Amino acid sequence: MSSEKKEAGGLSTTNALNDSPFMRACRREPVPYTPVWLMRQAGRYMREYREVRARTSFLELCKTPELAAEVTVYAAGKLNVDAAIIFADILLIIEPMGLDLEFARGEGPVIHNPVRGGHDVERLREVEDVGALDYVYEAIRQTRRALPSGLPLIGFCGAPFTLASYIVEGGASKNYVHTKRMMYDDAGAWHAMMSLISRALSRYLNAQIAAGAQAVQLFDSWVGCLSPDDYREYVLPHTRSVIENVTTGTPVIHFGTGTAALLELMREAGGDVIGLDWRVRLDEAWRRLGDVAVMGNFDPIALFASPDHIRRQAQKILTQAGGRPGHIFNLGHGIIPDTPVENVIALVEAVHELSARQVSST
Amino acid sequence: MSSEKKEAGGLSTTNALNDSPFMRACRREPVPYTPVWLMRQAGRYMREYREVRARTSFLELCKTPELAAEVTVYAAGKLNVDAAIIFADILLIIEPMGLDLEFARGEGPVIHNPVRGGHDVERLREVEDVGALDYVYEAIRQTRRALPSGLPLIGFCGAPFTLASYIVEGGASKNYVHTKRMMYDDAGAWHAMMSLISRALSRYLNAQIAAGAQAVQLFDSWVGCLSPDDYREYVLPHTRSVIENVTTGTPVIHFGTGTAALLELMREAGGDVIGLDWRVRLDEAWRRLGDVAVMGNFDPIALFASPDHIRRQAQKILTQAGGRPGHIFNLGHGIIPDTPVENVIALVEAVHELSARQVSST
Repeated sequence: MSSEKKEAGGLSTTNALNDSPFMRACRREPVPYTPVWLMRQAGRYMREYREVRARTSFLELCKTPELAAEVTVYAAGKLNVDAAIIFADILLIIEPMGLDLEFARGEGPVIHNPVRGGHDVERLREVEDVGALDYVYEAIRQTRRALPSGLPLIGFCGAPFTLASYIVEGGASKNYVHTKRMMYDDAGAWHAMMSLISRALSRYLNAQIAAGAQAVQLFDSWVGCLSPDDYREYVLPHTRSVIENVTTGTPVIHFGTGTAALLELMREAGGDVIGLDWRVRLDEAWRRLGDVAVMGNFDPIALFASPDHIRRQAQKILTQAGGRPGHIFNLGHGIIPDTPVENVIALVEAVHELSARQVSST
Repeated sequence: MSSEKKEAGGLSTTNALNDSPFMRACRREPVPYTPVWLMRQAGRYMREYREVRARTSFLELCKTPELAAEVTVYAAGKLNVDAAIIFADILLIIEPMGLDLEFARGEGPVIHNPVRGGHDVERLREVEDVGALDYVYEAIRQTRRALPSGLPLIGFCGAPFTLASYIVEGGASKNYVHTKRMMYDDAGAWHAMMSLISRALSRYLNAQIAAGAQAVQLFDSWVGCLSPDDYREYVLPHTRSVIENVTTGTPVIHFGTGTAALLELMREAGGDVIGLDWRVRLDEAWRRLGDVAVMGNFDPIALFASPDHIRRQAQKILTQAGGRPGHIFNLGHGIIPDTPVENVIALVEAVHELSARQVSST
């Protein structure tokens, strides 16, 4: 026992990280229990996060590495999850493109100079040097130093379509009228904008990896508003180019919501792990996807139900995963404010316990 | 030629309706061109509708048969569509259940006494007599008299889940927290409420049919927030019971959005026609559904694009339908405000012209 401990302690941090359940699952290797982390695990549902936010605006928090690292590390420890994800926002990258971003209190993001056509695309700045986002890399370095040596840290970005939808709409949207009109009627400008965004994203992800992230995730949160044909024509080549240009050897998680009819196309665009939302059955989705890891897919709203229901629901998902190597447990989308924190903790415990039992019984 | 005209004029109205392209498509019989109508075809995007609304509140309009008939008939004629749909709102039925409904200006519906658990379900009134909605039946009678004799009129209701989500949330919702919590933690109350709603809906649809509707549609607009397993357990039996109890011989259209992973289950719940949104390919969806008619599935936001794009997109959908009998052309969801009315007309013309050409070339 003591020699084992010594041996483990003697492993380099790199090896401890590489051998973690999360990294093993990304590579579809067997794990002693199903690794779990939760999108938006550091967020408003958590009292300690709200205390930090009471003193700081959202953008200030993102841009202050000490604070971003603090909330990242705190949430991972409090929940006992198997990966941390750097606290940041998908829209930070649009500032160096020349877009004027503001988070109005309680209103979500506002972009004061949205892009509506070719003329606007011309004024977008190529993000040659992603140094403008040094605060993100510094937060990653500080987080990496503060995290337990075997706990992987995930970097991330918005996927090209989701970012484009904010850039064109000027904020969140219900119907994506401006975005789709530009796609359909000004395809040249659309593709030019998507290419510029995609080049910036690859550089941004690689800088996060260089700073210490073990894996990266693309969030295509709003891509589910598209038809499969539109996805193929207007989105897939760009997402693929981002993923192809990520530093070799770093697992890429490719996540979207409302993607029940897009899964094969997302797979074609790339990623070592495909993120699923709860609106598909995990077993059927994984069968359609074939040889790739999957992440998901607990309904975040089920976290408002009783711990009994949460446990049964976690078991259902683990049963659908069937012990097949390559499952990372997660929600189907981020934790929403007002979610009871004790239920989140109960979910993580249930996943660990039930999946370890599943492994030992097979 | 003149004898043919005479013969057609001699057909009873019933036969003219039964032989209309829309009714033939519901029964999967061959048609000379693909029938088309558009969800929310009488609505705010249309100047003449806004003029009526300038003088009347939304609820007053619904409750004044002359006006409801006027906007219904006007829109069908202006667009030259192949079916009219009675102007009404899916929430009207909840008033006789004892729910206090208001349409706040620009805010959407508000229910001042939402249902949150078993105690609230007990105070819901069984809608034994759907006479409280006489104004809807009177609007149907007046519309039927005013419509061309061969133009079918569609009656409709909200599907049980979509209605329940409004009743429980107290209005529109983003995350359906209260609805899902009630489903998960108080399944007895949930099923009691869904049963009560379903009984009211069957009676309501049958009264619309008795008043003169040739077909009926269930709108399950928000069902796409559910996982397939939740749909099967908490929704399917209730939707099935509504559909099973519709007067025999009247086609039922079963429509939802975000249903890419729910189509087989919706089919199981019933309906002669399954409504598809644009987030699935029509050909793949129809293959999965098998021997049933389908309706759809033009992205309503593509109506903001150029007439050229609209025409190409209409052709794509007709090509996917492949001339297989049983396709009713429609949008994947309702027309939204600010949609250019000339583009809506261009879509209807394109569907008629392109589908007639497809028929004559095969």
